[in-house]
Amino acid sequence: MGSIERREREREDKRRQILDAARELFVEEGYDAVTMRKVADKVEYTPTAIYLHFKDKEELVREVVTQDFLKLGQHFASIAEIDDPIEALSAMGASYLDFAQKYPNHYRLLFMTKLPQTTEQLPEHHGNPSLDAYALLCVLVHKAMERGLFREDLTDAEFVAQLLWSGMHGIAALRISCPEHDAWIQFRPAKALGAEMSRDLMAGLLRNPPGRPRARPSKSASKPKRRR
Amino acid sequence: MGSIERREREREDKRRQILDAARELFVEEGYDAVTMRKVADKVEYTPTAIYLHFKDKEELVREVVTQDFLKLGQHFASIAEIDDPIEALSAMGASYLDFAQKYPNHYRLLFMTKLPQTTEQLPEHHGNPSLDAYALLCVLVHKAMERGLFREDLTDAEFVAQLLWSGMHGIAALRISCPEHDAWIQFRPAKALGAEMSRDLMAGLLRNPPGRPRARPSKSASKPKRRR
Repeated sequence: MGSIERREREREDKRRQILDAARELFVEEGYDAVTMRKVADKVEYTPTAIYLHFKDKEELVREVVTQDFLKLGQHFASIAEIDDPIEALSAMGASYLDFAQKYPNHYRLLFMTKLPQTTEQLPEHHGNPSLDAYALLCVLVHKAMERGLFREDLTDAEFVAQLLWSGMHGIAALRISCPEHDAWIQFRPAKALGAEMSRDLMAGLLRNPPGRPRARPSKSASKPKRRR
Repeated sequence: MGSIERREREREDKRRQILDAARELFVEEGYDAVTMRKVADKVEYTPTAIYLHFKDKEELVREVVTQDFLKLGQHFASIAEIDDPIEALSAMGASYLDFAQKYPNHYRLLFMTKLPQTTEQLPEHHGNPSLDAYALLCVLVHKAMERGLFREDLTDAEFVAQLLWSGMHGIAALRISCPEHDAWIQFRPAKALGAEMSRDLMAGLLRNPPGRPRARPSKSASKPKRRR
Protein backbone atom coordinates (compact mmCIF):
# COMPACT_ATOMS: atom_id res chain seq x y z
CA MET A 1 0.00 0.00 0.00
CA GLY A 2 2.79 2.42 0.98
CA SER A 3 4.49 1.84 -2.31
CA ILE A 4 1.28 2.36 -4.29
CA GLU A 5 0.65 5.61 -2.45
CA ARG A 6 4.17 6.78 -3.12
CA ARG A 7 3.88 6.00 -6.81
CA GLU A 8 0.56 7.81 -6.91
CA ARG A 9 2.13 10.86 -5.27
CA GLU A 10 5.05 10.79 -7.70
CA ARG A 11 2.58 10.65 -10.53
CA GLU A 12 0.74 13.67 -9.14
CA ASP A 13 4.01 15.58 -8.74
CA LYS A 14 4.97 14.91 -12.33
CA ARG A 15 1.53 15.91 -13.51
CA ARG A 16 1.81 19.21 -11.65
CA GLN A 17 5.27 19.86 -13.09
CA ILE A 18 3.90 19.31 -16.56
CA LEU A 19 0.95 21.64 -15.92
CA ASP A 20 3.23 24.38 -14.54
CA ALA A 21 5.60 24.10 -17.49
CA ALA A 22 2.71 24.14 -19.95
CA ARG A 23 1.16 27.22 -18.34
CA GLU A 24 4.43 29.11 -18.56
CA LEU A 25 4.93 28.15 -22.20
CA PHE A 26 1.33 28.96 -23.22
CA VAL A 27 1.64 32.37 -21.57
CA GLU A 28 5.10 33.21 -22.92
CA GLU A 29 4.85 31.82 -26.44
CA GLY A 30 1.12 31.60 -27.10
CA TYR A 31 -0.92 28.40 -27.33
CA ASP A 32 -0.29 27.78 -31.02
CA ALA A 33 3.50 27.93 -30.75
CA VAL A 34 3.68 25.35 -27.96
CA THR A 35 4.20 21.69 -28.80
CA MET A 36 4.05 18.64 -26.54
CA ARG A 37 7.77 18.24 -27.24
CA LYS A 38 8.50 21.75 -25.91
CA VAL A 39 6.59 20.98 -22.72
CA ALA A 40 8.45 17.66 -22.37
CA ASP A 41 11.81 19.40 -22.88
CA LYS A 42 11.00 21.96 -20.21
CA VAL A 43 10.34 19.29 -17.56
CA GLU A 44 13.15 17.09 -18.95
CA TYR A 45 10.86 14.25 -19.96
CA THR A 46 10.77 12.27 -23.12
CA PRO A 47 7.82 13.16 -25.35
CA THR A 48 6.61 9.60 -24.83
CA ALA A 49 6.50 10.02 -21.05
CA ILE A 50 4.38 13.13 -21.26
CA TYR A 51 1.74 11.32 -23.32
CA LEU A 52 1.23 8.94 -20.40
CA HIS A 53 -0.25 11.94 -18.56
CA PHE A 54 -2.05 13.87 -21.32
CA LYS A 55 -3.20 12.48 -24.61
CA ASP A 56 -2.65 15.74 -26.51
CA LYS A 57 -2.06 19.49 -26.20
CA GLU A 58 -5.77 20.17 -26.06
CA GLU A 59 -6.27 17.90 -23.06
CA LEU A 60 -3.27 19.58 -21.46
CA VAL A 61 -4.59 23.12 -21.91
CA ARG A 62 -8.04 22.13 -20.71
CA GLU A 63 -6.52 20.75 -17.54
CA VAL A 64 -4.41 23.88 -16.96
CA VAL A 65 -7.44 26.13 -17.43
CA THR A 66 -9.60 23.92 -15.19
CA GLN A 67 -6.97 23.97 -12.44
CA ASP A 68 -6.49 27.72 -12.72
CA PHE A 69 -10.19 28.54 -12.57
CA LEU A 70 -10.39 26.26 -9.53
CA LYS A 71 -7.54 28.19 -7.92
CA LEU A 72 -9.28 31.50 -8.64
CA GLY A 73 -12.54 30.09 -7.24
CA GLN A 74 -10.73 29.05 -4.04
CA HIS A 75 -9.31 32.57 -3.80
CA PHE A 76 -12.89 33.82 -3.66
CA ALA A 77 -14.01 31.23 -1.09
CA SER A 78 -14.64 33.76 1.71
CA ILE A 79 -16.63 36.15 -0.50
CA ALA A 80 -19.77 34.02 -0.39
CA GLU A 81 -19.93 34.48 3.39
CA ILE A 82 -20.33 38.27 3.16
CA ASP A 83 -23.99 39.16 3.37
CA ASP A 84 -23.88 42.72 2.05
CA PRO A 85 -23.53 42.41 -1.73
CA ILE A 86 -21.76 45.77 -2.16
CA GLU A 87 -19.20 44.83 0.46
CA ALA A 88 -18.85 41.44 -1.21
CA LEU A 89 -18.29 43.06 -4.61
CA SER A 90 -15.54 45.30 -3.22
CA ALA A 91 -13.92 42.34 -1.48
CA MET A 92 -14.13 40.34 -4.70
CA GLY A 93 -12.43 43.15 -6.64
CA ALA A 94 -9.60 43.35 -4.11
CA SER A 95 -9.25 39.56 -4.07
CA TYR A 96 -9.18 39.46 -7.88
CA LEU A 97 -6.28 41.93 -7.97
CA ASP A 98 -4.51 39.99 -5.24
CA PHE A 99 -4.81 36.82 -7.33
CA ALA A 100 -3.39 38.61 -10.38
CA GLN A 101 -0.46 39.87 -8.35
CA LYS A 102 0.29 36.55 -6.63
CA TYR A 103 -0.19 34.35 -9.69
CA PRO A 104 0.57 36.49 -12.74
CA ASN A 105 1.02 33.47 -15.00
CA HIS A 106 -2.32 31.97 -13.96
CA TYR A 107 -3.92 35.36 -14.54
CA ARG A 108 -2.28 35.78 -17.92
CA LEU A 109 -3.42 32.32 -18.96
CA LEU A 110 -7.03 32.83 -17.90
CA PHE A 111 -7.57 36.41 -19.00
CA MET A 112 -4.77 37.58 -21.30
CA THR A 113 -3.94 34.62 -23.52
CA LYS A 114 -5.71 33.47 -26.64
CA LEU A 115 -6.80 29.89 -25.99
CA PRO A 116 -8.63 27.37 -28.13
CA GLN A 117 -12.43 27.55 -28.04
CA THR A 118 -12.71 24.20 -26.29
CA THR A 119 -11.36 25.63 -23.04
CA GLU A 120 -14.37 27.94 -22.94
CA GLN A 121 -16.75 25.03 -22.68
CA LEU A 122 -16.06 23.36 -19.40
CA PRO A 123 -19.64 22.39 -18.60
CA GLU A 124 -18.83 21.48 -15.00
CA HIS A 125 -17.83 25.11 -14.38
CA HIS A 126 -20.28 27.17 -16.33
CA GLY A 127 -22.73 29.01 -14.11
CA ASN A 128 -21.45 27.42 -10.90
CA PRO A 129 -20.55 30.40 -8.67
CA SER A 130 -17.93 28.48 -6.71
CA LEU A 131 -16.01 27.53 -9.87
CA ASP A 132 -17.02 30.25 -12.31
CA ALA A 133 -15.87 33.68 -11.11
CA TYR A 134 -18.07 35.46 -13.64
CA ALA A 135 -21.14 33.63 -12.34
CA LEU A 136 -20.27 34.63 -8.77
CA LEU A 137 -19.90 38.25 -9.88
CA CYS A 138 -23.29 38.17 -11.61
CA VAL A 139 -24.95 36.60 -8.57
CA LEU A 140 -23.64 39.40 -6.34
CA VAL A 141 -24.72 42.15 -8.76
CA HIS A 142 -28.13 40.54 -9.07
CA LYS A 143 -28.47 40.40 -5.30
CA ALA A 144 -27.59 44.11 -5.04
CA MET A 145 -30.22 44.88 -7.68
CA GLU A 146 -32.88 42.86 -5.89
CA ARG A 147 -32.17 44.82 -2.74
CA GLY A 148 -32.60 48.06 -4.67
CA LEU A 149 -29.05 49.21 -4.03
CA PHE A 150 -28.19 50.27 -7.58
CA ARG A 151 -29.64 53.15 -9.59
CA GLU A 152 -33.09 52.36 -10.91
CA ASP A 153 -32.03 52.67 -14.55
CA LEU A 154 -29.50 49.85 -14.10
CA THR A 155 -31.46 46.70 -14.82
CA ASP A 156 -28.96 44.53 -16.70
CA ALA A 157 -26.92 42.60 -14.13
CA GLU A 158 -24.41 41.41 -16.72
CA PHE A 159 -23.78 45.00 -17.86
CA VAL A 160 -22.90 46.04 -14.31
CA ALA A 161 -20.87 42.85 -13.76
CA GLN A 162 -18.86 43.50 -16.92
CA LEU A 163 -18.28 47.11 -15.89
CA LEU A 164 -16.86 46.06 -12.52
CA TRP A 165 -14.81 43.28 -14.10
CA SER A 166 -13.42 45.68 -16.72
CA GLY A 167 -12.30 48.11 -14.06
CA MET A 168 -10.33 45.45 -12.19
CA HIS A 169 -9.09 43.69 -15.31
CA GLY A 170 -7.68 46.97 -16.63
CA ILE A 171 -5.63 47.45 -13.47
CA ALA A 172 -4.45 43.84 -13.34
CA ALA A 173 -3.58 43.67 -17.03
CA LEU A 174 -1.70 46.99 -17.16
CA ARG A 175 0.12 46.07 -13.95
CA ILE A 176 1.25 42.76 -15.42
CA SER A 177 2.38 44.42 -18.66
CA CYS A 178 4.09 47.14 -16.65
CA PRO A 179 7.71 45.95 -16.63
CA GLU A 180 7.63 46.60 -20.37
CA HIS A 181 6.36 50.11 -19.77
CA ASP A 182 8.82 50.94 -17.03
CA ALA A 183 10.81 53.42 -19.05
CA TRP A 184 7.76 55.64 -19.47
CA ILE A 185 5.30 54.83 -16.77
CA GLN A 186 5.68 54.28 -13.06
CA PHE A 187 2.62 52.19 -12.42
CA ARG A 188 0.98 52.86 -9.06
CA PRO A 189 0.23 49.96 -6.65
CA ALA A 190 -2.63 47.81 -7.92
CA LYS A 191 -4.17 47.61 -4.46
CA ALA A 192 -4.55 51.40 -4.13
CA LEU A 193 -5.86 51.71 -7.68
CA GLY A 194 -8.31 48.87 -7.02
CA ALA A 195 -9.67 50.48 -3.84
CA GLU A 196 -10.21 53.78 -5.68
CA MET A 197 -11.78 51.92 -8.63
CA SER A 198 -14.31 50.16 -6.38
CA ARG A 199 -15.07 53.34 -4.51
CA ASP A 200 -15.59 55.45 -7.63
CA LEU A 201 -17.63 52.89 -9.54
CA MET A 202 -19.91 52.45 -6.54
CA ALA A 203 -20.24 56.25 -6.24
CA GLY A 204 -21.76 56.19 -9.72
CA LEU A 205 -23.70 52.94 -9.52
CA LEU A 206 -25.31 53.10 -6.09
CA ARG A 207 -28.70 54.66 -5.62
CA ASN A 208 -27.55 56.28 -2.40
CA PRO A 209 -23.78 56.44 -2.38
CA PRO A 210 -22.23 56.82 1.07
CA GLY A 211 -20.70 60.11 2.22
CA ARG A 212 -17.82 61.49 0.21
CA PRO A 213 -14.65 63.08 1.54
CA ARG A 214 -15.71 66.42 0.06
CA ALA A 215 -19.44 66.37 -0.47
CA ARG A 216 -19.99 70.01 0.52
CA PRO A 217 -18.74 72.83 -1.67
CA SER A 218 -17.76 74.80 1.45
CA LYS A 219 -14.07 75.70 1.79
CA SER A 220 -13.78 74.58 5.40
CA ALA A 221 -10.29 73.96 6.74
CA SER A 222 -11.09 70.44 7.93
CA LYS A 223 -8.91 67.77 6.37
CA PRO A 224 -10.74 65.49 3.95
CA LYS A 225 -11.14 62.00 5.33
CA ARG A 226 -10.62 59.07 3.01
CA ARG A 227 -13.19 56.36 3.17
CA ARG A 228 -11.69 52.93 3.60
CA MET B 1 10.36 63.25 -62.06
CA GLY B 2 7.07 61.37 -62.57
CA SER B 3 8.95 58.10 -62.64
CA ILE B 4 10.90 58.94 -59.48
CA GLU B 5 7.67 59.88 -57.72
CA ARG B 6 6.03 56.66 -58.84
CA ARG B 7 8.94 54.59 -57.59
CA GLU B 8 8.86 56.44 -54.30
CA ARG B 9 5.14 55.71 -53.96
CA GLU B 10 5.67 52.04 -54.78
CA ARG B 11 8.37 51.95 -52.15
CA GLU B 12 5.99 53.47 -49.60
CA ASP B 13 3.26 50.98 -50.54
CA LYS B 14 5.60 48.06 -50.04
CA ARG B 15 6.77 49.48 -46.75
CA ARG B 16 3.18 49.75 -45.53
CA GLN B 17 2.43 46.18 -46.63
CA ILE B 18 5.42 44.96 -44.64
CA LEU B 19 4.38 46.95 -41.58
CA ASP B 20 0.80 45.61 -41.75
CA ALA B 21 2.01 42.03 -42.14
CA ALA B 22 4.48 42.45 -39.27
CA ARG B 23 1.82 43.89 -36.96
CA GLU B 24 -0.50 40.98 -37.66
CA LEU B 25 2.24 38.45 -37.03
CA PHE B 26 3.50 40.11 -33.84
CA VAL B 27 -0.03 40.20 -32.48
CA GLU B 28 -0.96 36.66 -33.48
CA GLU B 29 2.27 34.82 -32.74
CA GLY B 30 4.11 37.09 -30.31
CA TYR B 31 7.20 39.14 -31.07
CA ASP B 32 9.70 36.38 -30.31
CA ALA B 33 8.15 33.83 -32.65
CA VAL B 34 8.20 36.15 -35.67
CA THR B 35 11.14 36.07 -38.06
CA MET B 36 11.97 38.40 -40.95
CA ARG B 37 11.41 35.40 -43.21
CA LYS B 38 7.87 34.92 -41.90
CA VAL B 39 7.09 38.58 -42.59
CA ALA B 40 8.61 38.27 -46.05
CA ASP B 41 6.55 35.14 -46.76
CA LYS B 42 3.36 36.90 -45.72
CA VAL B 43 3.86 39.75 -48.21
CA GLU B 44 5.31 37.34 -50.81
CA TYR B 45 8.73 38.95 -50.85
CA THR B 46 12.14 37.37 -50.75
CA PRO B 47 13.88 37.78 -47.40
CA THR B 48 16.50 39.83 -49.25
CA ALA B 49 13.90 42.32 -50.51
CA ILE B 50 12.55 42.95 -47.02
CA TYR B 51 16.01 43.88 -45.74
CA LEU B 52 16.08 46.75 -48.25
CA HIS B 53 13.31 48.32 -46.13
CA PHE B 54 14.25 47.31 -42.58
CA LYS B 55 17.65 46.27 -41.40
CA ASP B 56 16.32 43.86 -38.77
CA LYS B 57 13.26 42.77 -36.78
CA GLU B 58 13.96 45.34 -34.09
CA GLU B 59 13.90 48.21 -36.57
CA LEU B 60 10.69 46.75 -37.99
CA VAL B 61 8.88 46.56 -34.63
CA ARG B 62 10.03 50.05 -33.67
CA GLU B 63 8.56 51.40 -36.89
CA VAL B 64 5.25 49.55 -36.37
CA VAL B 65 4.97 50.87 -32.81
CA THR B 66 5.89 54.41 -33.90
CA GLN B 67 3.27 54.35 -36.65
CA ASP B 68 0.61 52.95 -34.34
CA PHE B 69 1.20 55.49 -31.60
CA LEU B 70 1.01 58.18 -34.29
CA LYS B 71 -2.32 56.77 -35.45
CA LEU B 72 -3.64 56.77 -31.88
CA GLY B 73 -2.39 60.35 -31.43
CA GLN B 74 -4.23 61.41 -34.58
CA HIS B 75 -7.36 59.74 -33.24
CA PHE B 76 -7.12 62.12 -30.27
CA ALA B 77 -6.48 65.21 -32.39
CA SER B 78 -9.77 66.92 -31.54
CA ILE B 79 -9.44 66.33 -27.78
CA ALA B 80 -6.92 69.15 -27.32
CA GLU B 81 -9.52 71.64 -28.55
CA ILE B 82 -11.94 70.89 -25.71
CA ASP B 83 -11.45 73.46 -22.96
CA ASP B 84 -13.21 71.67 -20.10
CA PRO B 85 -10.78 68.98 -18.88
CA ILE B 86 -13.53 66.67 -17.57
CA GLU B 87 -15.34 66.81 -20.88
CA ALA B 88 -12.00 66.22 -22.62
CA LEU B 89 -11.26 63.18 -20.43
CA SER B 90 -14.65 61.64 -21.23
CA ALA B 91 -14.16 62.33 -24.93
CA MET B 92 -10.69 60.79 -24.74
CA GLY B 93 -12.08 57.66 -23.10
CA ALA B 94 -14.74 57.27 -25.79
CA SER B 95 -12.18 57.91 -28.52
CA TYR B 96 -9.81 55.36 -27.01
CA LEU B 97 -12.49 52.66 -27.11
CA ASP B 98 -13.39 53.67 -30.64
CA PHE B 99 -9.75 53.23 -31.65
CA ALA B 100 -9.62 49.77 -30.04
CA GLN B 101 -12.77 48.73 -31.87
CA LYS B 102 -11.74 50.12 -35.28
CA TYR B 103 -8.11 48.95 -35.13
CA PRO B 104 -8.02 45.89 -32.87
CA ASN B 105 -4.63 44.76 -34.18
CA HIS B 106 -3.07 48.18 -33.57
CA TYR B 107 -4.58 48.15 -30.10
CA ARG B 108 -3.36 44.64 -29.36
CA LEU B 109 0.13 45.56 -30.51
CA LEU B 110 0.34 48.72 -28.41
CA PHE B 111 -1.35 47.54 -25.23
CA MET B 112 -1.73 43.77 -25.20
CA THR B 113 1.49 42.37 -26.72
CA LYS B 114 4.82 41.83 -25.07
CA LEU B 115 7.32 43.86 -27.05
CA PRO B 116 11.07 44.32 -26.69
CA GLN B 117 12.18 47.03 -24.28
CA THR B 118 13.59 49.17 -27.09
CA THR B 119 10.10 50.03 -28.35
CA GLU B 120 9.46 51.71 -25.02
CA GLN B 121 12.17 54.24 -25.61
CA LEU B 122 11.11 56.32 -28.54
CA PRO B 123 12.50 59.63 -27.33
CA GLU B 124 10.68 61.67 -29.95
CA HIS B 125 7.36 60.51 -28.45
CA HIS B 126 7.92 60.48 -24.74
CA GLY B 127 6.09 63.28 -22.96
CA ASN B 128 4.82 64.85 -26.17
CA PRO B 129 1.02 65.00 -25.70
CA SER B 130 0.31 64.90 -29.45
CA LEU B 131 2.26 61.64 -29.86
CA ASP B 132 2.16 60.12 -26.40
CA ALA B 133 -1.41 59.32 -25.35
CA TYR B 134 -0.39 58.78 -21.74
CA ALA B 135 1.18 62.26 -21.60
CA LEU B 136 -2.03 63.77 -23.01
CA LEU B 137 -4.06 61.94 -20.37
CA CYS B 138 -1.79 63.23 -17.59
CA VAL B 139 -1.96 66.80 -18.93
CA LEU B 140 -5.77 66.70 -18.83
CA VAL B 141 -5.88 65.23 -15.32
CA HIS B 142 -3.37 67.83 -14.15
CA LYS B 143 -5.47 70.61 -15.67
CA ALA B 144 -8.57 69.30 -13.85
CA MET B 145 -6.61 69.25 -10.60
CA GLU B 146 -5.36 72.79 -11.09
CA ARG B 147 -8.93 73.94 -11.57
CA GLY B 148 -9.90 72.22 -8.33
CA LEU B 149 -12.33 69.84 -10.03
CA PHE B 150 -11.21 66.63 -8.34
CA ARG B 151 -11.52 65.68 -4.67
CA GLU B 152 -8.97 67.44 -2.51
CA ASP B 153 -7.32 64.20 -1.38
CA LEU B 154 -6.46 63.33 -5.00
CA THR B 155 -3.10 64.97 -5.58
CA ASP B 156 -1.25 62.42 -7.73
CA ALA B 157 -2.15 63.12 -11.37
CA GLU B 158 -0.59 59.88 -12.58
CA PHE B 159 -2.64 57.85 -10.10
CA VAL B 160 -5.86 59.34 -11.48
CA ALA B 161 -4.61 59.00 -15.06
CA GLN B 162 -3.83 55.32 -14.51
CA LEU B 163 -7.23 54.76 -12.92
CA LEU B 164 -9.03 56.24 -15.94
CA TRP B 165 -6.78 54.37 -18.34
CA SER B 166 -7.35 51.09 -16.48
CA GLY B 167 -11.11 51.50 -16.71
CA MET B 168 -11.02 51.94 -20.48
CA HIS B 169 -8.28 49.38 -21.05
CA GLY B 170 -10.30 46.77 -19.19
CA ILE B 171 -13.27 47.29 -21.48
CA ALA B 172 -11.17 47.36 -24.65
CA ALA B 173 -9.09 44.34 -23.72
CA LEU B 174 -12.01 42.15 -22.62
CA ARG B 175 -13.95 43.21 -25.71
CA ILE B 176 -11.08 42.17 -27.98
CA SER B 177 -10.66 38.84 -26.18
CA CYS B 178 -14.41 38.35 -26.29
CA PRO B 179 -14.79 36.06 -29.32
CA GLU B 180 -12.90 33.50 -27.21
CA HIS B 181 -15.35 34.02 -24.37
CA ASP B 182 -18.46 33.89 -26.49
CA ALA B 183 -19.62 30.53 -25.21
CA TRP B 184 -19.95 31.90 -21.67
CA ILE B 185 -20.24 35.62 -21.88
CA GLN B 186 -22.26 37.93 -24.05
CA PHE B 187 -20.11 41.04 -23.84
CA ARG B 188 -22.09 44.26 -23.84
CA PRO B 189 -21.26 47.06 -26.33
CA ALA B 190 -17.96 48.75 -25.46
CA LYS B 191 -19.42 52.18 -26.14
CA ALA B 192 -22.19 51.80 -23.53
CA LEU B 193 -19.79 50.30 -20.99
CA GLY B 194 -17.33 53.15 -21.67
CA ALA B 195 -19.97 55.84 -21.13
CA GLU B 196 -21.00 54.25 -17.83
CA MET B 197 -17.33 53.84 -16.83
CA SER B 198 -16.59 57.55 -17.42
CA ARG B 199 -19.74 58.60 -15.65
CA ASP B 200 -19.15 56.41 -12.58
CA LEU B 201 -15.46 57.19 -12.20
CA MET B 202 -16.22 60.90 -12.38
CA ALA B 203 -19.00 60.47 -9.80
CA GLY B 204 -16.31 59.27 -7.42
CA LEU B 205 -13.44 61.54 -8.46
CA LEU B 206 -15.12 64.92 -8.84
CA ARG B 207 -15.36 67.28 -5.94
CA ASN B 208 -18.88 68.24 -6.99
CA PRO B 209 -20.29 65.52 -9.19
CA PRO B 210 -23.20 66.63 -11.39
CA GLY B 211 -26.78 65.53 -10.66
CA ARG B 212 -27.51 61.84 -10.67
CA PRO B 213 -30.50 60.11 -12.24
CA ARG B 214 -31.67 59.06 -8.76
CA ALA B 215 -30.05 61.27 -6.19
CA ARG B 216 -33.12 61.55 -3.99
CA PRO B 217 -34.38 58.56 -2.08
CA SER B 218 -37.97 59.62 -2.86
CA LYS B 219 -40.07 57.15 -4.83
CA SER B 220 -41.39 59.66 -7.35
CA ALA B 221 -42.87 58.28 -10.54
CA SER B 222 -40.66 60.41 -12.81
CA LYS B 223 -38.47 58.39 -15.14
CA PRO B 224 -34.77 58.52 -14.33
CA LYS B 225 -32.83 60.46 -16.94
CA ARG B 226 -29.49 59.11 -18.07
CA ARG B 227 -26.71 61.61 -18.39
CA ARG B 228 -25.05 61.53 -21.77
